[in-house]
Amino acid sequence: MKNISYRNVTLNGGFLHEKQLLNEAVTMDAVYDRFCETGRIDAFKFEWTEGKENKPHFFWDSDVAKWMEAAAYILAKKKAPDIEAKLESLIDLIEKNQGEDGYFNIYFTVCEPEARYTDRSCHELYCAGHLFEAAVAYFEATGKDRFLRLMEKYADYIYKVFIEDKSAAFVTPGHEEIELALVRMYRATGKKKYLELALFFINSRGSEENNELKPEEVPLYTQSHTPVRKQTTADGHSVRACYLYSAMADLACETDDKELFDACKTIFDNIVNKRMYITGGIGSTRLGETFTIDYDLPNSKAYAETCAAISLMFFAQRMLQLENDARYADICERVLYNGMISGLSLDGKSFFYENPLEIDKRNYIKFPSKYNREKFAITQRVGVFTCSCCPPNLNRVLASVADYIYGYDKDTVYINQFASSVAEFDGMKISQKTDYPKSGKIKINTQNVKKLCIRIPSWCKSFGINVEYKTEKGYAVIENINGEIEVDFAMEPVLIQSNIEVYENSGKAAVCCGPYVCAAESVDNIENLHSLFIDKAFCAKAYYDEELCGYVLRVKGFKKVTDSSLYSSYSENYEDYTIRMIPYASFANRGESNMCVWINVR
Amino acid sequence: MKNISYRNVTLNGGFLHEKQLLNEAVTMDAVYDRFCETGRIDAFKFEWTEGKENKPHFFWDSDVAKWMEAAAYILAKKKAPDIEAKLESLIDLIEKNQGEDGYFNIYFTVCEPEARYTDRSCHELYCAGHLFEAAVAYFEATGKDRFLRLMEKYADYIYKVFIEDKSAAFVTPGHEEIELALVRMYRATGKKKYLELALFFINSRGSEENNELKPEEVPLYTQSHTPVRKQTTADGHSVRACYLYSAMADLACETDDKELFDACKTIFDNIVNKRMYITGGIGSTRLGETFTIDYDLPNSKAYAETCAAISLMFFAQRMLQLENDARYADICERVLYNGMISGLSLDGKSFFYENPLEIDKRNYIKFPSKYNREKFAITQRVGVFTCSCCPPNLNRVLASVADYIYGYDKDTVYINQFASSVAEFDGMKISQKTDYPKSGKIKINTQNVKKLCIRIPSWCKSFGINVEYKTEKGYAVIENINGEIEVDFAMEPVLIQSNIEVYENSGKAAVCCGPYVCAAESVDNIENLHSLFIDKAFCAKAYYDEELCGYVLRVKGFKKVTDSSLYSSYSENYEDYTIRMIPYASFANRGESNMCVWINVR
Repeated sequence: MKNISYRNVTLNGGFLHEKQLLNEAVTMDAVYDRFCETGRIDAFKFEWTEGKENKPHFFWDSDVAKWMEAAAYILAKKKAPDIEAKLESLIDLIEKNQGEDGYFNIYFTVCEPEARYTDRSCHELYCAGHLFEAAVAYFEATGKDRFLRLMEKYADYIYKVFIEDKSAAFVTPGHEEIELALVRMYRATGKKKYLELALFFINSRGSEENNELKPEEVPLYTQSHTPVRKQTTADGHSVRACYLYSAMADLACETDDKELFDACKTIFDNIVNKRMYITGGIGSTRLGETFTIDYDLPNSKAYAETCAAISLMFFAQRMLQLENDARYADICERVLYNGMISGLSLDGKSFFYENPLEIDKRNYIKFPSKYNREKFAITQRVGVFTCSCCPPNLNRVLASVADYIYGYDKDTVYINQFASSVAEFDGMKISQKTDYPKSGKIKINTQNVKKLCIRIPSWCKSFGINVEYKTEKGYAVIENINGEIEVDFAMEPVLIQSNIEVYENSGKAAVCCGPYVCAAESVDNIENLHSLFIDKAFCAKAYYDEELCGYVLRVKGFKKVTDSSLYSSYSENYEDYTIRMIPYASFANRGESNMCVWINVR
Repeated sequence: MKNISYRNVTLNGGFLHEKQLLNEAVTMDAVYDRFCETGRIDAFKFEWTEGKENKPHFFWDSDVAKWMEAAAYILAKKKAPDIEAKLESLIDLIEKNQGEDGYFNIYFTVCEPEARYTDRSCHELYCAGHLFEAAVAYFEATGKDRFLRLMEKYADYIYKVFIEDKSAAFVTPGHEEIELALVRMYRATGKKKYLELALFFINSRGSEENNELKPEEVPLYTQSHTPVRKQTTADGHSVRACYLYSAMADLACETDDKELFDACKTIFDNIVNKRMYITGGIGSTRLGETFTIDYDLPNSKAYAETCAAISLMFFAQRMLQLENDARYADICERVLYNGMISGLSLDGKSFFYENPLEIDKRNYIKFPSKYNREKFAITQRVGVFTCSCCPPNLNRVLASVADYIYGYDKDTVYINQFASSVAEFDGMKISQKTDYPKSGKIKINTQNVKKLCIRIPSWCKSFGINVEYKTEKGYAVIENINGEIEVDFAMEPVLIQSNIEVYENSGKAAVCCGPYVCAAESVDNIENLHSLFIDKAFCAKAYYDEELCGYVLRVKGFKKVTDSSLYSSYSENYEDYTIRMIPYASFANRGESNMCVWINVR
C-alpha cells in the first residue's frame, strides 16, 4: 500500500490530534527557541570564527533541518506566518552560504574546511540527508521549489564526489540517513541518479573499506560488518540501524529487490520478536546507543532513545507498505502511544533522549564520587540536549502524524491507525468518528471506497463490527460497503508477560490498556515499587484521565512486608494494596518519582 | 574476651581444617610462584632500573608481606623448611635494603626516591602496616626477632616523620592498615609510641588537611569525610573502611574509649543490617570498590572483594572481643564459609577478587565494542591479579584460621566456631569432636574450664544440649561442667528472604543450609536460571558433597514456560522442576556457568 499523505488527512480529535496541536502551539517554538539560544540557528549565517562562543557542531545542520521539515508539514495544512518566516529565513541563509559547487555544511565550511569528506563518523552525509528531507517536505507541502533546487544542487555534488570522482576518504556514511532521503529526493524530482546514489551507499555498505572506524567503534556499530543483504539481526547504533533498514525497505520497493526485502523482513522480525521494549523503544544500552543481543532488555538501563523509537516506526511504516500486514501498523501504534511520545513532556516543552522502563532514584545517589559512577537516564525532561536530535524529530513526526492513519492500494483503503479524522483522496472520502483512544468505538463513513481494511489491533482480545467482514493479515476486510461501519474494540486492562528469556522481567508482568503501556510511579503509590505485587488473578479498573492523556488504572495487588532484618526466614507476609498506574508515556511529569513498567506478580 | 591464639589450637578435621591444609599444600606455593613470575619477589632486591621489565608497583611490598605473615603462622605449628627459607631470604633482603633511617619501601626507594611521603594515595603506610603485621607474626610464631627489630626501626622512623617532624605532605594514609598494625606492634613490643602513632592517625582522620585527594576521589572514599568518632555508616572503599574500623575497635579496647567503641558498634550495625551481602561480602560497586547506600546490594554487579570479606571478619572478631556477643562470631562464620572462601578455587590455585552473587554469561557478550562496555566480575578464577591483594590475604587468614575458634575471658571459655580441634591454654584444655559442618553434632570435652559458652549459630532454628545451660548474648552458657557435653545443631535447608528494601531481591529468596549460602549454577540446571522458581512451600533435601566442600541441595520448584513471543498474555504456565544447588563458595569450579544465589519464589 501507499499511505494517504498527511496533506489529505485532517485529524479532528483524540490523542494524536492533541499531540499534533501541542506540537504546533508549543513544541515547535520550544525547540526553535532553544536552538536560537544554543547558536544552532545563527550558525546558518556562517559567521562563526575561532574564539567566538557556540562553535557549530558537525550535527547541528541536521537538528535544524528536522525542525524545518516539521515547519513544512505545518505550512501544508495552515497559515503560520511566523513559522514560514523562520523557515524562509533559514532557506535564505542556505542559499547565501551554499558553496558554488553545491556543498552545504556549516561545520565543514566554517570550522574545518580542509576536512570535507575525510571523516566517515562526522555526520556530514547525515546532515545532508536531513536537509534533503526538509526540502522535499517543503516542496510537497507548498509547491515552492527554491529549497529543493538548492538541495538538488547539493545532491548532485555528492553524486559527483562519491560516484564520479570517488574523491571522498570513505565510501559510505557512518550515520545513515542520506539513503532514505535520496529516495525521497528521487520521488520528488524523478531524477534517477538519486536512486542510484542511494543504492550505491546501500550496496557498498559492509565492504571492507567501510570498516575504518574510530578505535572505540566496531563495524557492527554502523551496520558495516557485512553487506546489508546478509544482515539478519538488528545491530549497532539503533537509530542508524533503523534509518538504514528504512532505506533498504524503500529501495526494495523501488527496485523490486527480493533479497533486500527479505533482509528487511528478517531484521524487522529480529527487532520486534527479540530486541524491542514493550514500549516500542529500542537500543538496550547507552554504551554506543546500540542494540545488544536477543532478549537483553534491561529496564533502568534501557537507552530506548526517542529517535530510535521514531526510526523503528519509519521502518515499520515502510514494511507495512511493502506487505500490507497490520502487524507493522501495530508497531507504529506501540511507538506512537508509548516509547516515542514519552520523549515529550505533557506541557510540550521538554524532552527525554533516553526512555527507560524503570527509574530508581537510589541509582542516582548511590555512588560516592561523581567522577566514578554508573550512568543512568535523566529523570526529568529538559529543553535541549548537547546532541539535540530527539526534540526536532518529535516536531517532524507530530507535524506529519496524519501520514500514519490511512493507506491505499488500488481501490482498497486501509485504516492503520484510529483517530477522529477525515481523509479525501483521489475522489474517495473516508472518515472516522471516535473518541479513540478513550474508547475503542469507531464510526466509519466512506465515499467511493470499494474495499476497506480496518486494522484489528494486536492488543485487542475481542471486538465487534456491524457489517460482514473477513480477516486477512490482521485486518478486518469489508468488501461491500453500505452505510456507516461501526467498530468496537474492547479496551480492557490486560496483564502481559515477556518471554522468559528476558531475564530482567522474570516473575514480573506489565499492564497494558488498549494501545497504552502502563507504569507505576511512586508519586501515586509508595516509594518502594519493588515491594508491590500484582495479583495474578488480574483485576484492574481503568479511568480515562485527560491530564495524563490516557488511562489511569487501579490494579489489585499486594505489598510485601518484611521486618527490619536484612535477612530473615522467608515469609508470605503481604498486605492488600491497590497499585495505581498511569500511561507510561506520561511518567515523570509530576516531579521526581520512582517508576516501573514491569512489576512482580503473585 | 581474647581469642585463644592459633598457636594453642590444633584443627584436626572439617571444612576449616581442609582449607588450612589446602593453603599449606597448594595455595602458599601458588601465590609465591605467581609473585616470582610477576617480579614481586625479585623486587625486594632493589635492583630494578628504568627500562627493565616488572617495574615495582607501590603496593607490591604489601602483597609479599601478607604471604610472609602467612608463612610465619605456618612455621609456628610445623617445620616447613622451604617456606622458612623463602621467608628468611626475604627478611635478608629487607635487612640489606632498608634505609639507614629505617625506611623501607621498594617503589619509593627504587622508582621515585624523591617522592617519599608526598602522595597520600600511594599505599606507602599501607605497605608498612603489612610488613609490621608479618614481623609481629614471625616473632610471635617463632620467637625470632630479627624481622621485628627491622620493622621497629621503620616504625620509629614513621613516628619521627609524622609525629615529631611532621615532614610528610599528608597526615593520614589514603589506605588504612598501618593503624591496626601499629597496635599489633605495640602489643608485641610494649612500646607505647606505636599506640600513640596509631591513635594519631585515627584521631587526625577526617580533618580538613586529609581531604586533598585525586579529583576522581571524594573524602568519603578514604573515610576522611568526618572525624571517625562521628561516622555512623560504613562508607567508601570497603577494605580500607573495615581495616580502619578494626583499628578503631583495637584502640577502643586498648584505651577504653567509649566514643570510639560506640562509633564501631554503630558502623558495624550499619554494615550487617543494611550493607552486607548474604555471603558476608561487602562493597556494592566496582566503581571505587566502595560501599554505596543502605540496601543497595546488586547481585551480578556485586563487588564483594575477597579482601573486603576478610576485613569485615577482622572487624567482627574485634567486636566479638569487645562485647562477647555471639552475633559477631556469626558474621565471622558467614564470611569464612561463603564470601571469603569463594575467593579460592577448590584446587587451591586460583582466585577471585570480586565475588558476585549472580553470573549471567550474556552480560559478557552483549556489548558490541570491547572498548565501550559495562564491566562485570570475571567468571573464572585466575592465578594472580595486577593488584593481587586477595590471594596472600587468603594465605594469611587460612594459616591462622584457628584464631577464630576459641575465646576466653578470665575463667570462661568461648566456642565461637565449630571445628574438630583441641585447644590447650593456660592449664585449660578443650576439644571439639565433630564432623561439622557435615553435621551439627559436636562433642565437647574440657579440662579445668569453669564456665563454657557455646555459640548458638544464628542460622540454627533448633538445637539440643545434653547439659543444663542458660542463653546469653547468643551463647549457651554452661556453668557446671561435668563430663562430655553433646551439642546438636539441626542443620536443615532454610529459605531466606532479604529486606524488601533490597530492590534487586524482591520476589526472590536464597537457600541456606547451616553456615552455607547456596547457589544454583546452570551446569547443574538449565541455562536460564531466571526461569526457575522455588516453591514457597519450601521443600529441599541436602546431601553433603566432599568434592564441593559442603551441602548440595535438591529444591522443589518450578520452571516457567512461555511461548516464543516476546510479549504475550500473562500465563501461569509452570512445569515442576527440581533446582539443584551447591555451596555458593564452590561456584565456578566446573567451567563457565550462569549462577545465582537469589531465585524467584512462587
